Amino acid sequence: MSKGESTRAALLDAAVNLASQEGLGGVTIGRLAEKVGMSKSGLFAHFSSKANLEVEILASAVARFVEVVVSPALKAKRGEPRVVALFQRWLAWGNELTGGCIFVAASVELDDREGEARDALVRTQRDWLETLTTASRSAVSEGHFRKDLDVEQLAHDIYCLGLGHFHVSRLLRDPQADKRVQSAFERLLHDARAHRRKE
Amino acid sequence: MSKGESTRAALLDAAVNLASQEGLGGVTIGRLAEKVGMSKSGLFAHFSSKANLEVEILASAVARFVEVVVSPALKAKRGEPRVVALFQRWLAWGNELTGGCIFVAASVELDDREGEARDALVRTQRDWLETLTTASRSAVSEGHFRKDLDVEQLAHDIYCLGLGHFHVSRLLRDPQADKRVQSAFERLLHDARAHRRKE
Repeated sequence: MSKGESTRAALLDAAVNLASQEGLGGVTIGRLAEKVGMSKSGLFAHFSSKANLEVEILASAVARFVEVVVSPALKAKRGEPRVVALFQRWLAWGNELTGGCIFVAASVELDDREGEARDALVRTQRDWLETLTTASRSAVSEGHFRKDLDVEQLAHDIYCLGLGHFHVSRLLRDPQADKRVQSAFERLLHDARAHRRKE
Repeated sequence: MSKGESTRAALLDAAVNLASQEGLGGVTIGRLAEKVGMSKSGLFAHFSSKANLEVEILASAVARFVEVVVSPALKAKRGEPRVVALFQRWLAWGNELTGGCIFVAASVELDDREGEARDALVRTQRDWLETLTTASRSAVSEGHFRKDLDVEQLAHDIYCLGLGHFHVSRLLRDPQADKRVQSAFERLLHDARAHRRKE
């Protein structure tokens, strides 16, 4: 990594953390310059515009998400173990950045705001849903989950549960949050498993 | 209502809508003044400070939530019909304000920011979870839901599902969002029902 590249990486790290706390809107070039002790003009050399900065922050957050959630989870055994690994690492991701899940923060900001940053965020979330769907599908082909399982529905339900958990744990600070989310996840797995008797 | 009171109510309406789009942070006294065509000093007469304005916005949103979600749903028959009415009206609430659910937007902003507004928001969310818990408990006593149901777990699961749905529908704009959320909710009800066979 050249000096320019490593400065840029350090800047993006700081920006991702700031965005997890304040949202993308809170990361102005001025504010970031202050945080890292650089001049605004120095920062402009790295990120030509606020819109460009937002897209780069999201790309950097995705790279980190892949590194700490997706890649290690994909090493788990195909089938249910991999679905479990993806979910558990996703929950831990909620504590990876200072201000919680940056994608949840950005979702609320960008849902009404058309543009490149929104498009980038939607792609990340679709990718994540697809990762959950694919893992669930391989759990069907491994015989862990039942053959008639609606794998997209399961991915949707896991996704909602994880998003809900970020609210329950970070806003409500419910001491039962972990127990509750695990219990709900266990019920989703139970319903999905192949040995389930017909009711 | 006196003229002062009705002006104040109109201001709060505009502020609640603006907050649903931009978050509480986006509702500055200057911005609100511009939106409603009043002077900043005129607005200061109504809301002494930004912090005070945030608490009033939340209180006003709660009053509206009670009016369009809770009160009509509580008229539904005790038991499962009431749980269903609360959930369905909550989903519709996501389209009540221009920018979606104001409480979801505020959650992301306030989770890391101690203060009166955060405390007020946490109270609203606990009240909502309690409303769901109480309705579920009466569904048990009516014999609609099984006796060994963990009603707090059910309320938690419904809460996560609804929050997740706001992301799936508003950010991802998934055309299947409604079908998916209803299917997940039906599974929660199915698991909760008294006629469920032991597995």
